Amino acid sequence: MDIKSDTDNTDDAPVSERVQELLGVGSRLFAEKGYEATSMRDIATAAGVSKALLYHHFASKDDIYARISFLATQDLNSYVEARIPENGTASEKVRAFMIGAATFFADHRESWIAASNAFWADPDRHRLERRLARRRQFEQSLRTLIEEGIESGEFNKVDPATAGRLILSGINWMHRWFHPGKGMTAEQIVDQYADIILGGLVSQK
Amino acid sequence: MDIKSDTDNTDDAPVSERVQELLGVGSRLFAEKGYEATSMRDIATAAGVSKALLYHHFASKDDIYARISFLATQDLNSYVEARIPENGTASEKVRAFMIGAATFFADHRESWIAASNAFWADPDRHRLERRLARRRQFEQSLRTLIEEGIESGEFNKVDPATAGRLILSGINWMHRWFHPGKGMTAEQIVDQYADIILGGLVSQK
Repeated sequence: MDIKSDTDNTDDAPVSERVQELLGVGSRLFAEKGYEATSMRDIATAAGVSKALLYHHFASKDDIYARISFLATQDLNSYVEARIPENGTASEKVRAFMIGAATFFADHRESWIAASNAFWADPDRHRLERRLARRRQFEQSLRTLIEEGIESGEFNKVDPATAGRLILSGINWMHRWFHPGKGMTAEQIVDQYADIILGGLVSQK
Repeated sequence: MDIKSDTDNTDDAPVSERVQELLGVGSRLFAEKGYEATSMRDIATAAGVSKALLYHHFASKDDIYARISFLATQDLNSYVEARIPENGTASEKVRAFMIGAATFFADHRESWIAASNAFWADPDRHRLERRLARRRQFEQSLRTLIEEGIESGEFNKVDPATAGRLILSGINWMHRWFHPGKGMTAEQIVDQYADIILGGLVSQK
């Protein structure tokens, strides 16, 4: 047995089309059936490939899961970053961050659910660390926007970490109740969240 | 085989001491190992009883889980209700609701995690419906507080459902990162959340 996995690709190398297809099938099954209830055989069958071929590309089910969620985090950071207006006010930047993150999650719902459900299950300590670093980077970039708003006097003197957590809680919790195509879009929901977070419930008149 | 479970107790009957003890052990194991990885044998062993005795009280692992989360929801509603100041402003009521809910969750962390992780896994449709009704009642009581604030002019004209969702997201998401005894208390965190939700990030001066 000399099964080679693509695990080492996760840092920088581009992902082949076949691997991407298999990751897509994995995402869908993890989201539909849950991580525990999905087997390598299920993924191979749903993708129309042999188990041997699946094992050629991935060392294990966990390997597939970890790559899905890793790619999701990586893309999330650059997606959101690209949507923040460089010369906007702190309010505009925070709102853009929120809408960017929620839109990304809505468009990548399956890997998002898979990632949320089993983030900590990764047995590869090193890989988990890299994913945690990316997540921290994501959280930190929001915190920085809030800090800038406080420093300029645009925002009240709140604890930036707590404010960032509240904002991300709203976005993260959406996977428990939000269904794309039913009711408001992710963007509309988070736009209202931003109104409340930025302006507050209490009327100022 | 004529195993009788206590399932029908969940509506009103008081829960015996032994059953409560077994539910406590179940909560702890579900929280520590996850629902899937916990077996009836694990629960019996940890509680120091035979599997037969465990099955005398509960039809299945799912039965145990469902009773834990059902009791948690039931108690949550009355706990929070009792803490809302009858003659307070809408802001005071919303803040009291938030602190009540977060404090309850922090004090009942194990059943809370078990409940959050597997709420939808209940195969008993009827029981799930009853739990959903209690949850809706909980969400509705927050929404009513927000509606009252809007009607009196104290709050801005937000969508009460969306505002309620944002508030509950902040509280619900705490089980993913909050550790009692480390850093701020649940009450301190949610007090800051209330400052932001009520007053907004943007400075009004």
